[in-house]
Amino acid sequence: MARDERGVTAQSEDFASWYNELVLKAGLVDRGPAKGTMVIRPYGYRVWELLQAELDARIKASGHENAYFPLLIPQSYLEREADHVDGFAPELAVVTHAGGKELEEPLVVRPTSETIIGEMMAKWISSHRDLPLLLNQWANVVRWEMRPRMFLRTTEFLWQEGHTAHADEQQAREEMLLALGIYQEVARDYAAMPVAPGEKTPGERFAGAVSTMTIESMMRDGKALQAGTSHYMGTNFATAFGISYAGMDGREELCHTTSWGMSTRMLGGIVMTHGDDRGLVLPPRLAPYQVVIVPITRGDGTEVVAAAQTLAEGLRRAGVRVHVDDRDQLSPGFKFNDWELKGVPVRVELGPRDLAAGTAVLVRRLGDQGKQSVQLDTLPQLMAGILEEFQMFLLARAAEFRDTHTSDVEDWAAFESGVASGWVRALHCGQPGCEDDIKTMTSATPRCVPLDGPPQTGRCVRCDAPAAYGKRVIFSRAY
Amino acid sequence: MARDERGVTAQSEDFASWYNELVLKAGLVDRGPAKGTMVIRPYGYRVWELLQAELDARIKASGHENAYFPLLIPQSYLEREADHVDGFAPELAVVTHAGGKELEEPLVVRPTSETIIGEMMAKWISSHRDLPLLLNQWANVVRWEMRPRMFLRTTEFLWQEGHTAHADEQQAREEMLLALGIYQEVARDYAAMPVAPGEKTPGERFAGAVSTMTIESMMRDGKALQAGTSHYMGTNFATAFGISYAGMDGREELCHTTSWGMSTRMLGGIVMTHGDDRGLVLPPRLAPYQVVIVPITRGDGTEVVAAAQTLAEGLRRAGVRVHVDDRDQLSPGFKFNDWELKGVPVRVELGPRDLAAGTAVLVRRLGDQGKQSVQLDTLPQLMAGILEEFQMFLLARAAEFRDTHTSDVEDWAAFESGVASGWVRALHCGQPGCEDDIKTMTSATPRCVPLDGPPQTGRCVRCDAPAAYGKRVIFSRAY
Repeated sequence: MARDERGVTAQSEDFASWYNELVLKAGLVDRGPAKGTMVIRPYGYRVWELLQAELDARIKASGHENAYFPLLIPQSYLEREADHVDGFAPELAVVTHAGGKELEEPLVVRPTSETIIGEMMAKWISSHRDLPLLLNQWANVVRWEMRPRMFLRTTEFLWQEGHTAHADEQQAREEMLLALGIYQEVARDYAAMPVAPGEKTPGERFAGAVSTMTIESMMRDGKALQAGTSHYMGTNFATAFGISYAGMDGREELCHTTSWGMSTRMLGGIVMTHGDDRGLVLPPRLAPYQVVIVPITRGDGTEVVAAAQTLAEGLRRAGVRVHVDDRDQLSPGFKFNDWELKGVPVRVELGPRDLAAGTAVLVRRLGDQGKQSVQLDTLPQLMAGILEEFQMFLLARAAEFRDTHTSDVEDWAAFESGVASGWVRALHCGQPGCEDDIKTMTSATPRCVPLDGPPQTGRCVRCDAPAAYGKRVIFSRAY
Repeated sequence: MARDERGVTAQSEDFASWYNELVLKAGLVDRGPAKGTMVIRPYGYRVWELLQAELDARIKASGHENAYFPLLIPQSYLEREADHVDGFAPELAVVTHAGGKELEEPLVVRPTSETIIGEMMAKWISSHRDLPLLLNQWANVVRWEMRPRMFLRTTEFLWQEGHTAHADEQQAREEMLLALGIYQEVARDYAAMPVAPGEKTPGERFAGAVSTMTIESMMRDGKALQAGTSHYMGTNFATAFGISYAGMDGREELCHTTSWGMSTRMLGGIVMTHGDDRGLVLPPRLAPYQVVIVPITRGDGTEVVAAAQTLAEGLRRAGVRVHVDDRDQLSPGFKFNDWELKGVPVRVELGPRDLAAGTAVLVRRLGDQGKQSVQLDTLPQLMAGILEEFQMFLLARAAEFRDTHTSDVEDWAAFESGVASGWVRALHCGQPGCEDDIKTMTSATPRCVPLDGPPQTGRCVRCDAPAAYGKRVIFSRAY
């Protein structure tokens, strides 16, 4: 297997190996000791914190309040909603012993919190005045994974889960779309991931939901990543947990609830949307270091390092996240590779000759990668624009990649060839059996019925039965 | 039992009942379904978020990086450090089944993360260049509690845990004190809790530590609350997990490690440091709402409510966290009581007559509680000062309370009477048997050997043996 000097398999050669090696080598994660667990290292955690801050601000600004619910849930709670327990039972981690004794009732480590939050909502809501109840929690959840993969499918992951209760269906469905809109905005404007918002087909719904909305994003191997989901639960959980309210007329009514989540899986999405053979490519808005300054020193580098620190100060004052790599035991070339591997958007090289000329050399991680000589004293003012341009470039590049790997298909041969390397939009009958058949034949699944798809009728691309949904469905292999 | 109209037992009558009722009635927490678990409700969680932001900023500014380590730890890890497993074994929650199968090795839900972080540190550290390694994680931990109490002792709680590795003892001990200093500063400047920093006696050390530092705070019943701890582990965990580095001379050396934590227990501390018979009293810097405006309306209140909203906008622009209580089904008197229960520092009443005069009525939650008429248009500029004064007042009041409930004692009779209502400073022999004896006689334990205590020698207040530590020890009953 061909590896470059840093030991990462080329993306084009073996995408899965490239990914698995890169997330470790770039210092985003490490393997935890228990099966399928991950350690999120500082470099990866910082990306999560930056994403978290944006998501949290939007969740709060739209009227939601953060709270925290217990990790351990009585097993019987999950059994109250039949579809929910069917969906999650195979993935549960169960605490049977605590405090040196066997528990009377086992506790499950939350795989998601609809049940325990439903129980509390039932206690807190009594009148229409208590609605809507708009809650969010930042938490860890555990779902036992047979085929774990860093960020994408791990036994434990971090996420936010919004949980809301409303007086009627319309308000709950609006909430579901509001959350989806936040996810779309954060994915697009921060992760530079152009996503397709849409509704899941019944077979792909969340366990216990009436409707599941998703944002789907294309990775550079043409597969889809479900990057965030938002669910309308109807009155399913309200019935199971007794979440009801007295209306203005005094009559007791069931609440309509929603839940929605975005997780550390997004970090895997960022890696697979922008990365290349040389390593990560981080969108500036989520990059721990937006700029790294590498002083080029031979012999005594005191003066150059001092100038690098001064430049860094100027950049910091201009609001740029900057790092000076002054490790003296490493060569500039090693450092260049190292920061390319770590996906830093902009590298600034500063040597004695540059310094004498009052300039520095600027190199972008992608796009125009030529070495560009810039005036040292103008860099702090210019950098915000350079980073913003880079951010826009990544989004445009990802959108172009997606569009050139997406096709409308009318027949089965085109469908099969389309999902081998990207997404297809096709008419489908909506029958679960036909979905299964397609999955068996091609590994592709219906990703979503896009919200913005134009109306279209016709016959199923696979079985020729009349098409459902009134529009095309996106099919793809997926993570 | 005497209760006022809001149903909270008077603090002076039964401190424990007052606390237990207040944290629920004020909407800080609710009981979770599993034994000893708590739900942190939005009002309580917001206090935690505000505290968290300050703590996190200081942890980062002092060079630490956030990361995240798995919740589930192989049971065998805990057994590698003998004192550590002895200390935590009785409190462990154990996952024995996952993914529908019995696990080959049970996993414990982390009670603290020295072991799993130690394992990773061993992997990440190879050279002196990798040191110091300064990590922090925000996480939930589980310790099975026989006598749970909201915030103070719950089966699950939230905290940050710092974990660091250093080249030698001196640097590790400096780190331990650095973390302690951060805790002291945050407790004092944000929670308005004047704390006593000091070292735990050997019997009160963290399981596996060589030295444990603590900040101890006095609650309004005279008991102590351990509000944050910082530990120097020596090479205990380095030995157990193989955390070593090649020094500059190439020789392999063991690292010296530390850990330190502050938790949601602080919320209980804030309640018990400042609260009174009427409810919570929140320090402005951590109050979700620093100011609540209550429009006083009879009949059509449109104009008054609009003026209240305008005032709120002005306060918000001045950086004040403000809420307008425009619930129309409740009387002003009910609202006053409600916001006093919830501990809002400043209430602004605004009625038609005030509005006509261009004034509002300002009422502080404590201190000078008289109704003060103020010019509406000056309020936004004045409020920061009013809140700051209130913050300082709380700290000064808590310090005065502590000082008047602390005494230097020379004999056993004074010791017994002192710990019945507060703290005593006494000479002690340092023998574990004598500590046990004192605990049996009085329920008091050595809280710490204060860092700033003046040198003193003499004989043990209890057993007359020669005193240890070279200074007085603080004894108290404690949470």
